[in-house]
Amino acid sequence: MDPYDHQNLFAKILRGEIPCHKICEDEQTLAFMDIMPRSPGHALVIPKCAARGILDISADAFAQVARTSKRVAMAAVAAFGADGVVIQQFSEPASGQVILHLHMHVMPVTAGVELLPAQSRREDNTILEEHTARMIVALGSVPVS
Amino acid sequence: MDPYDHQNLFAKILRGEIPCHKICEDEQTLAFMDIMPRSPGHALVIPKCAARGILDISADAFAQVARTSKRVAMAAVAAFGADGVVIQQFSEPASGQVILHLHMHVMPVTAGVELLPAQSRREDNTILEEHTARMIVALGSVPVS
Repeated sequence: MDPYDHQNLFAKILRGEIPCHKICEDEQTLAFMDIMPRSPGHALVIPKCAARGILDISADAFAQVARTSKRVAMAAVAAFGADGVVIQQFSEPASGQVILHLHMHVMPVTAGVELLPAQSRREDNTILEEHTARMIVALGSVPVS
Repeated sequence: MDPYDHQNLFAKILRGEIPCHKICEDEQTLAFMDIMPRSPGHALVIPKCAARGILDISADAFAQVARTSKRVAMAAVAAFGADGVVIQQFSEPASGQVILHLHMHVMPVTAGVELLPAQSRREDNTILEEHTARMIVALGSVPVS
């Protein structure tokens, strides 16, 4: 496995060098909207530590990503009136991964509506901003623990 | 959301009423081979508590599922000479889920080899037993923490 590349896109987001549609943040994780959502409310949860994927992240850090992902999932279902959730995480290029900083996809799903194909459409910024605001409000009602 | 159904397939596996190809177990989680693997080494990690999916599981229990999933992912890559890992979790029927006890799919992937379509082929029991044995050996070399 190659070493962690500190110039990857999400490392730049963590350093504030590139903006993101942030929805929540704690000591160990950051969550923001996917700019190519497969469903309305599709968010990403990343650890703040340097980790390419599930193979090199610590168990503690991955557990914290899971905790935040659960909160984001609950908020997304509430905010978008969804009926279910799909979680996905791809580690290493063999999985199709191109951004080698661990990220968990949290995608609310609606009965009878298929997810869009991965990376098929760049969402409009105005819509992303509206969705971000909706997620922030919904997260306010989700318990932290 | 409907209440948890204690007669679902994985509840029966947890009670020992139906066998599984068990690879590891701790106080909070159980992991076993998927009988319809999308790749050699495809395993499932489930919590022992009654939870339909990510929306009703406690944050603590989901964090423990994540910890076990990381261990299983590391073991699977070692045991099957894989190059990457795909993690998936589907909550509620709208996501396509039919077994309403939370389960995390851990699928080792090899560069250039696509995952099989979901639930496309029942694996031969002899092969599953050999893969189970291989995973148990590999898990012996993965740290618990």
